[in-house]
Amino acid sequence: MVKSETTQLNTVFHALGDATRRQMLLELADGERTVGELAKPFEISLAAASKHIKVLEKAGLIRREVRWRTHVCHLEPAPLAGAHEWLGFYERFWTDRLDALERLLHKEDASQSPYDKEGDDP
Amino acid sequence: MVKSETTQLNTVFHALGDATRRQMLLELADGERTVGELAKPFEISLAAASKHIKVLEKAGLIRREVRWRTHVCHLEPAPLAGAHEWLGFYERFWTDRLDALERLLHKEDASQSPYDKEGDDP
Repeated sequence: MVKSETTQLNTVFHALGDATRRQMLLELADGERTVGELAKPFEISLAAASKHIKVLEKAGLIRREVRWRTHVCHLEPAPLAGAHEWLGFYERFWTDRLDALERLLHKEDASQSPYDKEGDDP
Repeated sequence: MVKSETTQLNTVFHALGDATRRQMLLELADGERTVGELAKPFEISLAAASKHIKVLEKAGLIRREVRWRTHVCHLEPAPLAGAHEWLGFYERFWTDRLDALERLLHKEDASQSPYDKEGDDP
């Protein structure tokens, strides 16, 4: 079970590591698209688009439905939840950094105040 | 600006698409580690570990500090926030799916109730 979760995270993050594939997911968030429609915004061949779509399918992020001779793609969002959860573990770290930065800025403000006052009140 | 964000997401997601590298980040969440310490849990050479560390550095997820002849690595969590935010856009989709599933289950429960009653009260 742990292994399959690991494999899924590998394929999902790998699929997301390409701007064209991320853009395709964004398109599919608006609704189903044919392979041709997914390829259109990029200056790539249908074959190249198909390769990207296969990577997304392998990661379970897309479901492809065949209607006559047309392949229609749908977004499958579930695997994104696992990736989001994995990243969520680190949220405390980037939040801690921001908090530390804020504390530093307040400290600098506080240490500057006496000089400002001296300046105001010679 | 948009381009550099895109490039950063590419390198961050690419870096996360490998279980060894994700495990290294998890180790660093506990505190700084030398390259040797990061390599230890995996049966890989220092050279192989160093390659993974370089991918993580390129994505801005690790900062490497040289202390004498020892390279010490630190977690740099900020780029993970961007990836988390990107995935957060899709949260509504996986939540919608779960809501729809829940509605379906409730509907099934409701439609089963009369039969259950008939069974109880012949």
